[in-house]
Amino acid sequence: MACQRTQDLANFVFEGKKIIGVALNYMCAVKARNVPVPTVPIVFIKPTTSYLREGHPIVLPKVFTKVAYEVELGVVIGTRCKNVSKEKAMEFVGGYCLALDLTAQCNLTAARAAGGSWTLGKGFDTATPVSRFIPKDAIEDPHMLPLWLKVNGEIKQKGCTADLVFKVPDIISYVSKYMTLEPNDLLLTGTPHGSDAFQAGDLIECGLADLATMKFNVCAE
Amino acid sequence: MACQRTQDLANFVFEGKKIIGVALNYMCAVKARNVPVPTVPIVFIKPTTSYLREGHPIVLPKVFTKVAYEVELGVVIGTRCKNVSKEKAMEFVGGYCLALDLTAQCNLTAARAAGGSWTLGKGFDTATPVSRFIPKDAIEDPHMLPLWLKVNGEIKQKGCTADLVFKVPDIISYVSKYMTLEPNDLLLTGTPHGSDAFQAGDLIECGLADLATMKFNVCAE
Ligand SMILES: [Mg+2]
Ligand SMILES: [Mg+2]
Ligand SMILES: [Mg+2]
Repeated sequence: MACQRTQDLANFVFEGKKIIGVALNYMCAVKARNVPVPTVPIVFIKPTTSYLREGHPIVLPKVFTKVAYEVELGVVIGTRCKNVSKEKAMEFVGGYCLALDLTAQCNLTAARAAGGSWTLGKGFDTATPVSRFIPKDAIEDPHMLPLWLKVNGEIKQKGCTADLVFKVPDIISYVSKYMTLEPNDLLLTGTPHGSDAFQAGDLIECGLADLATMKFNVCAE
Repeated sequence: MACQRTQDLANFVFEGKKIIGVALNYMCAVKARNVPVPTVPIVFIKPTTSYLREGHPIVLPKVFTKVAYEVELGVVIGTRCKNVSKEKAMEFVGGYCLALDLTAQCNLTAARAAGGSWTLGKGFDTATPVSRFIPKDAIEDPHMLPLWLKVNGEIKQKGCTADLVFKVPDIISYVSKYMTLEPNDLLLTGTPHGSDAFQAGDLIECGLADLATMKFNVCAE
């Protein structure tokens, strides 16, 4: 049964129906930006058409002028749930992945200033590169994982999930007050300090502990 | 083949992976609110876990104090597409439905004021009641459809899709510049003037021309 479930979740990119992200969720990023620590998770949604697997390039939409990298721990939901307590939340995790939450800051900054939606700035095609599925059993503690990102060989982000403002159970508990989480849904837990713009021609590499690395070429649309 | 496709799309509620809404898309609503006419569609995304079919109640989440009805024409995508011209856009429509785009105005108003995401205010469970699938052939012109909504028998919204600021091809063309549209994706085209709060115990009824009616009881979580 456990084998069967893990096998199924390995296809989360094809089977999943939603991606829920959390913004401003690393203490290092909160401090660097000198903003108040969020009191609840700042939640947004991305379409599954934004998924990208290794071997295909990140395509920068011609409508955008500034797109930024954000390296993140992804959490794949294993079991349908709603209104879950923090205490029980980890039971509904099926596994993990390494992810990028690419963000068109040009669009998002303008949208936020006008009270607009984050959808286009977060949801464009190729905006969510992900690694292979990492089974739950492979990670003893998801809040002790180093993660890093390089652009053209130069280190740009270096953090640890110990620095998360809202931990995995906090996020699952909070989001599931509002919406049902389904198997193969992905949670993006936020990015450490250092997120910045990249451009066509760049090579982006990132890693999560000794569990996953991935690299993507960037091209213009 | 056409039969096969329509058959498939009848299950858009179960097979679809995204719901894309357009805000402030009726001229009557723009005029009533005395705001500028949008120059591009104001696009947001809802998860498919927000779908609701007739026979089940709308459940008002206990975390919200003000949830509003919005009656809308839904457009079901029939064929995968990206970067579609307005001229070709209707080729990618597979059919339609009558829909409600329920909105937690308490949450959305606060989010917008703070530059926050629309996700929770638009994406809660039962926030997207929909009718049965209406095949494309049943509607000669999607921009000539009256739609209405009653609360407890009293008419609250009455409009016509002729009043859309951005027509169906405009929406498909615009959204598909950013993200791929897939078969069974749903587009919510916006709501006419008159959207307002409702509460537990209410009965909501709505209709689209002589093509669909639906009714939902409202209960508290
Ligand atoms: Mg992020
Ligand atoms: Mg949003
Ligand atoms: Mg609406």
